[in-house]
Amino acid sequence: MDNNRIYYSLYESKIMTAEQAARLIEDKMIIGSSGFTKAGDSKAVLPAFAKRAANEQVGITLITGASLGHTTDTDLANNNALYKRMPFQLDSSLREKINDGSILFIDQHLSETAELLSNRHLPGIDIAIIEATYVDENGNIIPTTSVGNSATFAHLAKKIIIEINTAIPLDFKGIHDVIIPQDYPNRHVYNVTHTGSRIGQDFISIDPEKVIGVVFTEMTDSPARETESDETTTAIADHLLDFFNREIKAGRLTKSLLPLQAGIGKVANSVLSGFAKGDFEHLTMYSEVLQDSTFELIDSGKLDVASASSITVTKACYNTLLANFGRYKDKIVLRPQNISNSPEIIRRLGVIAINTAIEFDIYGNVNSTHITGTKMMNGIGGSGDFARNAYLSIFVAPSVSKGDAISHVVPMVSHTDHTEHDVDILVTEQGLADLRGLAPRERAKMIIDNCVHPAYKEQLQDYYNRALERGGHTPHIIEEALQWHSSLLQLGTMKQFVFQEQG
Amino acid sequence: MDNNRIYYSLYESKIMTAEQAARLIEDKMIIGSSGFTKAGDSKAVLPAFAKRAANEQVGITLITGASLGHTTDTDLANNNALYKRMPFQLDSSLREKINDGSILFIDQHLSETAELLSNRHLPGIDIAIIEATYVDENGNIIPTTSVGNSATFAHLAKKIIIEINTAIPLDFKGIHDVIIPQDYPNRHVYNVTHTGSRIGQDFISIDPEKVIGVVFTEMTDSPARETESDETTTAIADHLLDFFNREIKAGRLTKSLLPLQAGIGKVANSVLSGFAKGDFEHLTMYSEVLQDSTFELIDSGKLDVASASSITVTKACYNTLLANFGRYKDKIVLRPQNISNSPEIIRRLGVIAINTAIEFDIYGNVNSTHITGTKMMNGIGGSGDFARNAYLSIFVAPSVSKGDAISHVVPMVSHTDHTEHDVDILVTEQGLADLRGLAPRERAKMIIDNCVHPAYKEQLQDYYNRALERGGHTPHIIEEALQWHSSLLQLGTMKQFVFQEQG
Repeated sequence: MDNNRIYYSLYESKIMTAEQAARLIEDKMIIGSSGFTKAGDSKAVLPAFAKRAANEQVGITLITGASLGHTTDTDLANNNALYKRMPFQLDSSLREKINDGSILFIDQHLSETAELLSNRHLPGIDIAIIEATYVDENGNIIPTTSVGNSATFAHLAKKIIIEINTAIPLDFKGIHDVIIPQDYPNRHVYNVTHTGSRIGQDFISIDPEKVIGVVFTEMTDSPARETESDETTTAIADHLLDFFNREIKAGRLTKSLLPLQAGIGKVANSVLSGFAKGDFEHLTMYSEVLQDSTFELIDSGKLDVASASSITVTKACYNTLLANFGRYKDKIVLRPQNISNSPEIIRRLGVIAINTAIEFDIYGNVNSTHITGTKMMNGIGGSGDFARNAYLSIFVAPSVSKGDAISHVVPMVSHTDHTEHDVDILVTEQGLADLRGLAPRERAKMIIDNCVHPAYKEQLQDYYNRALERGGHTPHIIEEALQWHSSLLQLGTMKQFVFQEQG
Repeated sequence: MDNNRIYYSLYESKIMTAEQAARLIEDKMIIGSSGFTKAGDSKAVLPAFAKRAANEQVGITLITGASLGHTTDTDLANNNALYKRMPFQLDSSLREKINDGSILFIDQHLSETAELLSNRHLPGIDIAIIEATYVDENGNIIPTTSVGNSATFAHLAKKIIIEINTAIPLDFKGIHDVIIPQDYPNRHVYNVTHTGSRIGQDFISIDPEKVIGVVFTEMTDSPARETESDETTTAIADHLLDFFNREIKAGRLTKSLLPLQAGIGKVANSVLSGFAKGDFEHLTMYSEVLQDSTFELIDSGKLDVASASSITVTKACYNTLLANFGRYKDKIVLRPQNISNSPEIIRRLGVIAINTAIEFDIYGNVNSTHITGTKMMNGIGGSGDFARNAYLSIFVAPSVSKGDAISHVVPMVSHTDHTEHDVDILVTEQGLADLRGLAPRERAKMIIDNCVHPAYKEQLQDYYNRALERGGHTPHIIEEALQWHSSLLQLGTMKQFVFQEQG
């Protein structure tokens, strides 16, 4: 046993194997587990439970911060160990079971899960499973690479299992800033007034009496996927950087912009990497995930401070970070996701939010979650928390995919996650549509002129022209509005669709 | 001239007629005018400008708090005096012009207009027109029955015209709590921690140098429409009151509930009036409009304090209020709409939001604005500000209308203003669907079982059953999802639609 990981002697009698801990979970229990975008997840107990479920009919409702790493969600899904899952996932096996209806999934704004639990709008947590760097002399938990919903889980759960991960350096202590929502009607202000503000404690406070198991692991997080810029992502990034430069020239922003939030993925990474080249200085980030680009920007001296709920980076970046943690420690803060994604703080700081759309329509409504209106991809994640409250709400997407069988700019989105009220800027590799101060008919012109792929431009203009003849504040041909999607389902393409006026 | 209405002598030389003031407005100017849900609007200068536009080709972009009273929007619209209008309206002539595309309308969350102006995401205000009870010794404005966006207009405008309305008693001074958003990146906390918190000044601070005209009026606000409860609204109110009683029994709420917000109209009034009869005490209201029911609840001793951006009541209530203002004065606060509708404060206080839907779908997405997906009704108003951040987000609608030609519960909404993520409770006269903690397939069952009118139940169940065969997290038959709406457009009814599987 590692003596410098448990400073609270009463826990020593609770040390057990992952298999023993997994036996403490009963069928139909509600489990809250650490883990946010593959960072700081349960690496022993949940996998052991998944194994147990291979031989036994036993299942849980699993609530996490966001996605889990390794093959945990895959194994849980394939072994029928999940009845219900929330608030986010990013796993192809789990996704399949969600879409065939065998696992119920609740797609939640990431800021809201802790709220719903605190308000008892969701059932109570039976067991919280929390990854720890170590436990301190009062039995409290020093988290690892994410905070997620862990503090709320630990606070509300009847019982707690701690996974001490010895792969995480002890000097992670100090990067976390933890606070839980007070009960209504006595909520306090979340007094974050700049990106680096600290308003809580650097540990998760727990009642040691609730701890029923302590498990040791030594295992790094699943690495983020390597993302190489390509022509499309570079073009999108360039359009956005041009836009920011114009905003600076117009005097609306300074070279420090305002705190940046970026969703996960190639485009976001491309944009953020672009800032390293540009004439920007003293940037800050108020986001949900710190990615490779965050640490590149810190290295380049452009980024002063970054706040999020997790660190999710590639293998190489992870190794550099762990080996040189002191270089970054005073520049990063990890918070609970109800604080990293808090509407209050996002609006107060004036966050610039950059998120990825599955598709958007000619009026600027955005679908972030559902393929052809029915199949869940990953979940809304934090995009809504940010888009709705941001100083600027930006969504990016390639204009087409699968060759040009799919247009990501459509007459009407097949599912709405972000309404046109909450979308300021849309960008594809074709160009950027600045929708600020525009009425729907102006938005349509701007989007068709700037964002649509040439293969779909005429087709979309034709739809819009005919919709205009029908009139309305937001013109549509209602019986044709979703035909691009049904064409995709039936014919495998949105293209060359022959329109007949049906009205 | 009324000497006790101007305590700043330099303004006396600026006194003029409404017609003279209207001449100060130039073609294509951007005008910001007081007025929120018909309260505290410009009653002289805008109407005079509308008259001027009858004989002259002259038009403006008009930004208000919300809807205007009297026939101002009608006259402006009919005389082609509007190029663009935001953020809300409630006028049939204006609506017609918006829907035929001759007036551009921007439908905004009511909390956001002041933000967009402060951030210069909207063009600058040329002239602010603000109704005042009086002007104080520093030239500052004591507002009347609304605050709306007036403080931001006055702060940002190049010039200001003041309308002093002598119909408003001088003791209105003291009910307002005014603050404007600071510029980024130095935003402060909006430190409202309970409904009655005061964080600003009880006047609108202005630069007297900007005042170019002072006009006197003596004219009451347009009264709110009289609303009589009927069978439908009473049934909806009863379902909701039962629900609140169950929440109290479950220990999630106390008899004081949490601060209430209610949209305008019959149902909201019915629900609020219901509280007077029930076993509730020390209620509070954090809303955008104070309606008759607010004052009834104060009279009944059930309501301790009410905060909003305006007072919009019927003639009888208005007269009682003005004659007995002292009885109510210490129980009400009027705030700028970016504070009454602030996401930060709504989430902190844990507001219970009750708003009206035009239609909702089997997964709980809500359309608040567009008839059959294209025609603007009034605008989203504050419903999004509240729904998204509320402790409980409740939407109400009758299950059917026009006999039963229209079902307000549909397979897929024809326009989305509030996504399923932001909708907790749906109520029709048929019953209440409590969607908390439910996945989409569970939501569909709950909504079909509880909210749909019998005339549509089989039809909707049939759609859902066939959608289930296709699968997906959110099952839909995409080519049929909007057919109820096209049937309504083509056949005048959503009923008896003969479905043929087209896949």
